[in-house]
Amino acid sequence: MKIVLAKKAGFCFGVRRAVDIAFDMAKKKKKGIFTLGPIIHNPQVIEKLKEEGIPPIDNINTPGIKAIIIRTHGITLNLMNKISEAGYEIIDATCPFVKKAQHYAKLLKEEGYQVIILGDRGHPEVQGLMSFAGKDVIVVDYNDPLPKIRHKIGIVVQTTQPVDALKKLCGRVVEQAKEVKVYNTICNSTALRLKETAEMAKEVDIMVVVGGKNSANTTQLAKLCRALSVPTYHIETGSELKPEWFRGAEKVGITAGASTPDWIIRETEKKIKGYRRIKG
Amino acid sequence: MKIVLAKKAGFCFGVRRAVDIAFDMAKKKKKGIFTLGPIIHNPQVIEKLKEEGIPPIDNINTPGIKAIIIRTHGITLNLMNKISEAGYEIIDATCPFVKKAQHYAKLLKEEGYQVIILGDRGHPEVQGLMSFAGKDVIVVDYNDPLPKIRHKIGIVVQTTQPVDALKKLCGRVVEQAKEVKVYNTICNSTALRLKETAEMAKEVDIMVVVGGKNSANTTQLAKLCRALSVPTYHIETGSELKPEWFRGAEKVGITAGASTPDWIIRETEKKIKGYRRIKG
Repeated sequence: MKIVLAKKAGFCFGVRRAVDIAFDMAKKKKKGIFTLGPIIHNPQVIEKLKEEGIPPIDNINTPGIKAIIIRTHGITLNLMNKISEAGYEIIDATCPFVKKAQHYAKLLKEEGYQVIILGDRGHPEVQGLMSFAGKDVIVVDYNDPLPKIRHKIGIVVQTTQPVDALKKLCGRVVEQAKEVKVYNTICNSTALRLKETAEMAKEVDIMVVVGGKNSANTTQLAKLCRALSVPTYHIETGSELKPEWFRGAEKVGITAGASTPDWIIRETEKKIKGYRRIKG
Repeated sequence: MKIVLAKKAGFCFGVRRAVDIAFDMAKKKKKGIFTLGPIIHNPQVIEKLKEEGIPPIDNINTPGIKAIIIRTHGITLNLMNKISEAGYEIIDATCPFVKKAQHYAKLLKEEGYQVIILGDRGHPEVQGLMSFAGKDVIVVDYNDPLPKIRHKIGIVVQTTQPVDALKKLCGRVVEQAKEVKVYNTICNSTALRLKETAEMAKEVDIMVVVGGKNSANTTQLAKLCRALSVPTYHIETGSELKPEWFRGAEKVGITAGASTPDWIIRETEKKIKGYRRIKG
C-alpha cells in the first residue's frame, strides 16, 4: 500500500502565524490572556493552547481578562471597539488576508459603493467583514438569488471562496449595476489545496482528510473527494482511523485543511503506515 | 398579410440628437461646415445632409473648413486636439453615452487601472475610447483570448455590445486580477431593440430589417433573426424590396437599426402594405 501526503496539507500562512502568536504568548506565562472564540477551527490546537494557559472565551465580560488574542477569522468592528474601550490589550492574530478584505470592505463603503460580500453569512470571517461594509451590505453565497441592488456596487470575497463563485456573482452584478468595483480577496492557498487534493483523489483508492469537523475548508476538501467518487474519510485525529478502511487499497492519499496542525497530520500518516506493515 | 412594426425600430437617443444637430446647422445655411466621417452609419441620411450643404470629409486638411461636426461615435483625443489647434469650431454631436464611456476610460487610466475595452477594435467608437484609455489599453471582442493582464484592471464597454459578452469578460478578468473596476457603459436601447426583435422574429413568417449595410447594430439585428431561422431580408431602403419575398407570408415583421431614419422605415412599411393590397 502506497501512501501519498499532499504538499499543501495543513496550516496556511495566516493560521500558522496566528498559532505562532498564541503559543509565543503562552511562553511568557502571563495570566489573563485569552483567545476570543477558538483561535482556529481545530479542537486539538485549542485544547493544547488551553493546557499552555491560554483558554478561549466566548465573551469579553469574563473576569480576569488582561489581553485578548483576536483569531484568524477576525472580529466585528464593534467588538474590536468594545475591547479597546474595556482597556484590554489586543493581540491581533487576524489573518493578514482577512485584514485586507476588511480594509477593502471599509474602503468600498467610504467610496459610496453598496457592498456585496460573497461568502457564508454564518461564518465569523463574513460577520467581521459585514461590520466594515456599511448598513446596506448584502451577503450572497454561491447559489443565492441576488436581491435588488444599487447602481454602484463593490464586491469583496470571503478568503476561502472558490473563484467560480466570484465569476458567477460578477456576471450577475454587472448585468444590473452601472459601476462595479471588485476586490478579489480569495486566498490562493485554498484554491491550490483544492486543486492538489482533486488531482490526488483521482489517483488513489482511498482519501483521508484530516481536520476539524467544524472547519469549513476541511469539510470542503472531503466534499470534493466524495464528489470525485473516491471513498473518503474525514477525521480529526489519527485515533479515529480504522484498519478495515484500508483493506485492499493499493494507494492512499492524505490531505488536511488549513487549520490542521502538522503533528496531527504526521500522527495520521504514521498510523496508516503501521497498517501497511501489518498487512505487507 | 399582417404587418407589425417594432416599437423600438429606428433612431436611438444619441443618433436622433446628432442628426437634429446637423440638420439644425444646415438650416443656418453657413458655408464651411462639414461632418468628420459619416455622422451616422446610414448612407441615405448622409446623402440628404450633403444636399442640405453639410458634406462629410475624411480628414481635417480639406480646404474651406470653418466648423466640424463630430459624429455620434466620437473621435480620438488626438484628433479632437488637432481640430482645436487648427482653430475650427467644434460642434460635438458625440452620443452622450459614448462621451460618458470616454470619460470613464480616462478616469480609469488616471486612477492607475490598466483599461480593457470590450468591443470591436475596428469600430470608430472603440478607436475613440482607446485614445482616452492609456498606452497599455487592451481591446477584446466576444471570443478573443485574454492576454496577460495587470492586477488592477478597469473595464469600459462599447455602448452597443451585448451584456453577455461583458458577463463573460468580467468572469475571465476577476479570475486573474486582484482589483477590477467595471463601468457597464452598454446602452440599454441596443439591448431593448434586440429583445423586441427576437420576440417578433419568433412570431412572424418573414423579417425585414431596415438600415445601413455598414451599420453594425442593424447587421446584428439581421443576424439575430437568421439565427432564429426566420427568412430575413436586410435592406437599406424600400426600393430593394421584392414582392415575391412575401408570397404566402401571413405575418411580416419590420425592425430597423439605431441609425435608420423614420422616413425610410415608413416608406418600407408603406411599400409592404401595398403588396398586401395587390394580393389581398
